[in-house]
Amino acid sequence: MTMHADLIINMDTILTMDKDLRQLDDHQIVVKDGRIIDLCPQEEKRWTASKTLDGTDCIAIPGLINTHSHLPMSYFRGLADDLPLDIWLREYIWPMEAKTLNSSVIHDAALHGAAEMLKNGITMTHDMYFEMPAIADACTKAGLRALIGEAIISARLAEGQKPGDQLRILRQEYRDNPLVDFNLSPHSIYACLRSDLETSVEVAQELDLLLHIHLSETKEEVQTCLNKRGMRPVQYLKELGMLEIPLLIAHGIWMDESEMDLLVGTRASIASCTDSNLKLASGIAPLKGWTDKGINFAIATDGVASNNDLDILAELGNTARLHKAINEDPSFLPAAEALKHVTINAARALGVEESRGSLEIGKDADICILDHNSLCCQPLYNPYSHIVYAMNGRNVRDVVVGGKIVVQGGKLTQVDEAELIAKAKHYGKRILKELSQ
Amino acid sequence: MTMHADLIINMDTILTMDKDLRQLDDHQIVVKDGRIIDLCPQEEKRWTASKTLDGTDCIAIPGLINTHSHLPMSYFRGLADDLPLDIWLREYIWPMEAKTLNSSVIHDAALHGAAEMLKNGITMTHDMYFEMPAIADACTKAGLRALIGEAIISARLAEGQKPGDQLRILRQEYRDNPLVDFNLSPHSIYACLRSDLETSVEVAQELDLLLHIHLSETKEEVQTCLNKRGMRPVQYLKELGMLEIPLLIAHGIWMDESEMDLLVGTRASIASCTDSNLKLASGIAPLKGWTDKGINFAIATDGVASNNDLDILAELGNTARLHKAINEDPSFLPAAEALKHVTINAARALGVEESRGSLEIGKDADICILDHNSLCCQPLYNPYSHIVYAMNGRNVRDVVVGGKIVVQGGKLTQVDEAELIAKAKHYGKRILKELSQ
Repeated sequence: MTMHADLIINMDTILTMDKDLRQLDDHQIVVKDGRIIDLCPQEEKRWTASKTLDGTDCIAIPGLINTHSHLPMSYFRGLADDLPLDIWLREYIWPMEAKTLNSSVIHDAALHGAAEMLKNGITMTHDMYFEMPAIADACTKAGLRALIGEAIISARLAEGQKPGDQLRILRQEYRDNPLVDFNLSPHSIYACLRSDLETSVEVAQELDLLLHIHLSETKEEVQTCLNKRGMRPVQYLKELGMLEIPLLIAHGIWMDESEMDLLVGTRASIASCTDSNLKLASGIAPLKGWTDKGINFAIATDGVASNNDLDILAELGNTARLHKAINEDPSFLPAAEALKHVTINAARALGVEESRGSLEIGKDADICILDHNSLCCQPLYNPYSHIVYAMNGRNVRDVVVGGKIVVQGGKLTQVDEAELIAKAKHYGKRILKELSQ
Repeated sequence: MTMHADLIINMDTILTMDKDLRQLDDHQIVVKDGRIIDLCPQEEKRWTASKTLDGTDCIAIPGLINTHSHLPMSYFRGLADDLPLDIWLREYIWPMEAKTLNSSVIHDAALHGAAEMLKNGITMTHDMYFEMPAIADACTKAGLRALIGEAIISARLAEGQKPGDQLRILRQEYRDNPLVDFNLSPHSIYACLRSDLETSVEVAQELDLLLHIHLSETKEEVQTCLNKRGMRPVQYLKELGMLEIPLLIAHGIWMDESEMDLLVGTRASIASCTDSNLKLASGIAPLKGWTDKGINFAIATDGVASNNDLDILAELGNTARLHKAINEDPSFLPAAEALKHVTINAARALGVEESRGSLEIGKDADICILDHNSLCCQPLYNPYSHIVYAMNGRNVRDVVVGGKIVVQGGKLTQVDEAELIAKAKHYGKRILKELSQ
């Protein structure tokens, strides 16, 4: 007897990324009501469905999860390169934001970024920016899941505004939207007053939210904290109560061992952004230290203005290669282990490991299908190896989010790519004009 | 009056990579008899031609030049990862080569690699391997220029065989082939007897050839040289007379300052292979030191077995980002400077800078056309920035070698890609079988 589902994906290879790292060959992923309801051998022919995807010469992996991004920065890509973080932020990015952004530009730029992420196999991102509704609507339109942080920069808070004010309203407004959710993102310890950080912790505790913050991105930031607070950044977080709640630290490059020890046993994870950290010359994060101490971390893209792409698979390969050399150990971050940091470990970092991050029955049908029928992927001996070391975003063929096919044959199904490109060109000209004035 | 040419390429943007780094907008590249005969404004309508390429929304750059590769290793990609160089070479690569390779496999694997290089925008490679005629024929078939080194490993020389024996014959045999040339590549100071290295220098001097050698790829190699010779590797090269001839060192990671000083003022260049060096945990090369001392270097892919791709544009971006962080200087290797290391500086490393490496009248028509009409490349503020930090091989649309269009619209024109993929799958199965016996 066959049963009926919404979608069947027949795969040559499925890398489940479950706790046993099971690889399933010639199986099918069966989807109903947005969830995976079966993973079974194709030959059993248990299911029928209204839609079928053929995954010949393809590998299915869990949809990639990007734990740190700034979607609305899409239009700033390549506008200011080869500069240090401090100058880049204060002399370029922040003035550009003030001069050129409004909620309509933010919506369009976020839609551009969301579409670009999907084409790179990302099915969920964790964004930190302003104008949350614009970002939420853009992600919904593209079909990308997003956890969107209310960015707090104390100097930009309106008179009487408190961290969490927007968040409370938006969580109500979007409560029926399965793709988006909101949390709180105090920008950093240098851009937030102590009182705003304390309020953020209170709000996170009250609403049971993940708190997200940039931390230890540069040596200077650590030195400033030492000078001003007499303690290192993670110690400061501890004093603020942040280590008692679910916490996601972006970067954490200059964390020392004593700080890592403070994180052990807490609910803190780290979003490490290799390409951005290298490009801004911020440094190289201590992935080996985190691994040795069992601190959970994910590999993320950061915003395109400092990356300059959203190709998280390329970033994964770069990270795996880099940390072998840095640690003088070619066996560090082997391919299968590396892949966890953009799938199950990334889901854990966002507190969604019960429903995403691996391909298992009962989880959301968030799936990335990679095509290996190309010169750069043949012969294929070990699918993990090719995914990490030979593939990048160009190998993404189909992407499914919550059971909906949002990328098919490399093409976006929910938005018009040509229109997005035309818009980007238009805004690019406007940004240049406004900057030259 | 209009004049007639073979090919006109109408470009939105041309980055000439000439000594003034001229950028030409709305110009055309005019090609006749395999050479660039004009670079003029499109509106002047000086030329007619039998073929025209439309470069709307594209950037033309010189064909990329890969200074260090092992084309026939294509079928070993991903077969042995996450291992150190020594074990990787001695326990996997060399035994696999002995077990599985013959001139027919080498031809097919080299053709696979040559096709993959072209699709990544590479128009010339410098290869080091065995079975040179097989490699030469493969490159000729695909339409890729190749300087092919006769690899010397003393233990593999046949009875009575001297370095250079094959080379002399092949230079005669292929003298009418405009795409391929041959030189001499003693593998390394650890795989070659002193007498073979000395003979190599003599042959190079006699025939006025570039000599190519792996050097200082690992710390252990340097230590072994110190123990055995009482001197560092570059000192040993000097003693052998290698610094008096045109020399290309592959890797050079562990070169110290005294060794760099020995190279200043010589005709030596370095081929630096970032991804391979990281992946094998060999180390990170001193690009800043070479830059400061004016030592010429190029960025190269190495073989796919240790990279694991031939995406030299991705490698360029990785290199530029990495060395900013390593040197704590985000302004080091800015985009336009970085691009030189896969174009004009790479041509210089191979001694072909008079005819290749930049788009100039009189030079060979070796051209790479990059499409920026995509989400990952818009808006476009600075073409150098996007090429280095946002693009990779997927943006290569057309490739011209010696005036012939060898990739058009992302498709190979000289070889059947599906057939290459089928062959790779076939050989992959055979290699696995032979290894399991």
